[in-house]
Amino acid sequence: VSHNAPEHGPDARAGPVPRAGILVTGTEVLTGIITDRNGPWLSERLRELGVDTAMIEIVGDRPEDLLAALEGMRAAGMSLIVTSGGLGPTADDLTAEIVGRFCKREMVLDDALEERIAEILRPLMRRWAGLDEAAVRRANRKQAVIPVGSTVIEPVGTAPGLVVPYGGAPGFAGPTVVVLPGPPGELRPMWQTAVATEAFQAAIAGATQYRREIVRLYGLPESEIAATLEAATADGLTLGDLEITTCLRRGEIEIATRYEPDAQRDYDALLDFVRARHGTMLFSEDGSTVDDQVAELLLSAGGSVAVAESCTAGLLAARLTERAGSSAYFLGGGVVYSNEAKTLVAGVPAELIERDGAVSESVARELASGIASRLGASVGVGITGIAGPGGGTPEKPVGLVCISVWSAADGRRITRAPRMPGSRADVRDRSVTVAMHLLRRLLLGGSDAERDAPRAADRPV
Amino acid sequence: VSHNAPEHGPDARAGPVPRAGILVTGTEVLTGIITDRNGPWLSERLRELGVDTAMIEIVGDRPEDLLAALEGMRAAGMSLIVTSGGLGPTADDLTAEIVGRFCKREMVLDDALEERIAEILRPLMRRWAGLDEAAVRRANRKQAVIPVGSTVIEPVGTAPGLVVPYGGAPGFAGPTVVVLPGPPGELRPMWQTAVATEAFQAAIAGATQYRREIVRLYGLPESEIAATLEAATADGLTLGDLEITTCLRRGEIEIATRYEPDAQRDYDALLDFVRARHGTMLFSEDGSTVDDQVAELLLSAGGSVAVAESCTAGLLAARLTERAGSSAYFLGGGVVYSNEAKTLVAGVPAELIERDGAVSESVARELASGIASRLGASVGVGITGIAGPGGGTPEKPVGLVCISVWSAADGRRITRAPRMPGSRADVRDRSVTVAMHLLRRLLLGGSDAERDAPRAADRPV
Repeated sequence: VSHNAPEHGPDARAGPVPRAGILVTGTEVLTGIITDRNGPWLSERLRELGVDTAMIEIVGDRPEDLLAALEGMRAAGMSLIVTSGGLGPTADDLTAEIVGRFCKREMVLDDALEERIAEILRPLMRRWAGLDEAAVRRANRKQAVIPVGSTVIEPVGTAPGLVVPYGGAPGFAGPTVVVLPGPPGELRPMWQTAVATEAFQAAIAGATQYRREIVRLYGLPESEIAATLEAATADGLTLGDLEITTCLRRGEIEIATRYEPDAQRDYDALLDFVRARHGTMLFSEDGSTVDDQVAELLLSAGGSVAVAESCTAGLLAARLTERAGSSAYFLGGGVVYSNEAKTLVAGVPAELIERDGAVSESVARELASGIASRLGASVGVGITGIAGPGGGTPEKPVGLVCISVWSAADGRRITRAPRMPGSRADVRDRSVTVAMHLLRRLLLGGSDAERDAPRAADRPV
Repeated sequence: VSHNAPEHGPDARAGPVPRAGILVTGTEVLTGIITDRNGPWLSERLRELGVDTAMIEIVGDRPEDLLAALEGMRAAGMSLIVTSGGLGPTADDLTAEIVGRFCKREMVLDDALEERIAEILRPLMRRWAGLDEAAVRRANRKQAVIPVGSTVIEPVGTAPGLVVPYGGAPGFAGPTVVVLPGPPGELRPMWQTAVATEAFQAAIAGATQYRREIVRLYGLPESEIAATLEAATADGLTLGDLEITTCLRRGEIEIATRYEPDAQRDYDALLDFVRARHGTMLFSEDGSTVDDQVAELLLSAGGSVAVAESCTAGLLAARLTERAGSSAYFLGGGVVYSNEAKTLVAGVPAELIERDGAVSESVARELASGIASRLGASVGVGITGIAGPGGGTPEKPVGLVCISVWSAADGRRITRAPRMPGSRADVRDRSVTVAMHLLRRLLLGGSDAERDAPRAADRPV
């Protein structure tokens, strides 16, 4: 097993770490018709098992490209390869066959598996009455042809997965290949089954468990983090055993740090340093997201929220209801695109819209308190802005979004009117993130009154 | 230039086709913290230029892995490599340096470029008053250190891009590398600039323009398409010069076909065959999406739409407003999570909810007509269902979603109550797609009255 050490990381000292390659197949993924969700998900699961993902590779349905990618991963010293996709009933679905060839194993029809797939198809055939049953059955038979010596992962849809140990001559060892279907709803449960197999466990023997911590900051530019890490080193902190990755995501900065248990004190010192330097901008030290925190704050206070959204048009409501059980605190709201909707749904006085314009801090404030009062929520959020690309003026340019949150109990408000860069989608997405952070601050007791105080958290969003 | 022919495709007959590899860098992408949007986007742009993307590879920020990936793509015969990411100010951003090493070019500080980056930073420095200006400037200077002989792509953010021709000894030719920053808002405009450079054009010389058509079907299982392609062959159609890819996406089936201009008649015959066999299930022959068609139908009829969403909680509104100019036909709506919101926002009688339950066809119907009447829209959509994972009962299981559309002009309605498989996110996403298709059918003049007619389009959704 070969291993490449990171620039500054603990791996150089560690024993051989099993490394994995993830191979996502499908011309529809390669050409951008659909977006891959499996590569990153598998990468996270592997990390939890102490396995380093060295690469995620996406190739089309051409057999030569699939085989070349598998051979490339073998040459790079992967001890495990996980493939997704290419197990469907159509002729362009070739993964099982190519993996068999790669692992030097004959393909055989597994009669019992064919019968189990037929069993799964029976109720579907009834539902799609009138289809050519024989053709469907034939198309699916190929899913029961598997490399000899592989472990079958029972299908969640109609496609079985496989764990295929490399079968070359002794002395020419190669990786174990885990073959999974493309639809995430099938891949995910089947992954758990695959992990439990003997062949899989043999392939990852020797994995070291790393610790991995994520902290999140909001309200400062990414370059400032580079300066912070420099200052920490200048201050005498030891960062050499920490593998630190920073990234900007939806207007937040995430610092992910991976380290062996030995380096815990170094990590603790770094966290103290970041905490001291960035104050309340450091909003999460335990990996929680602002979404987690808002949900937790609402649940623990028995609070409820209602939203009135113009330019974000439901995206905040959709985000607040992503998690199961959100009906405990999310009541509903209005998508108030037209001026009439702002008045009819959220009760914003038509004269106010006339006087200040639909995109104004005053209208955002009325949207927040109007919708909360109407639905009896303890907290309201109002958003109105210009997502673009059209509709901007010199006074109210594209990207200007007014966002306000209101507390029914005591009338506290926080209102911001940032101008956000980027495309229509960027402006909408970023606005929702700003709203989540304002909501969090309000639930923590903040208000516009503290806006003039010289606190880091009160820099413009 | 090596080239792998597809299983059944025109490439075997064509001259050498330039092939490209896309290399996405960043531990945050590899570990799933952020989702790559650049790989698929670049793949589509390359296709438009007649360049085949053979692979998209995602690697972390480790220099050895970056270099190995570049070498692997060279070995696989790529004539062009496009990288995204790793141009930021932090120490883990190493792409320019590694590409320089790969292309066998010295790194030099470009003084003029450094000054231009400083110019870009100046207003940002003012905005983030109080930051350590020298540290920020130092962190960004490294962005001006570039491989000698490369073409600079002017920054859209603060990171310049590069076009770096391979500089090895004569006889050891290698690919041209286009180096772009990770944020899509920077990468996309800079790509256009990169394409126009001489070094880029030299690398893709000899590209053949293919035709590529996409058709979409709704309301049948993917396996049926395999049967259709088999039947077409049995019927005497010639498919050998068509490279056909099918995929299931959000409940729709897409058939993408790529071919050289010579094979146009073969493609036309295939399209006739699919049209005859699947009737109105074939809803798009020109690549348009159901979103495009709904927008077009609303615009051409001067119609307007309002929505009342329970379990999808704003996702339909967000989807209807994704495109610029949607305010011409989208008025707004309600996110009616609680029963009170259903009554207060969309006017659903509380007694009806009491009698039939919040998740019922009758409530979906009232949501549709209630919200449309209240906002004065010509068409209304109501959605109420159980997204799960909790909240299901034997009578109303998780995944049951009632969806109704209503036309104000003549009272036509279409209502469906499918039970959808998958996770909470899957159920919500699929429900929105069903709603888009019902909306399309209503706008085309359909109604529940035609439900009993023996038409393909009326199979259960």
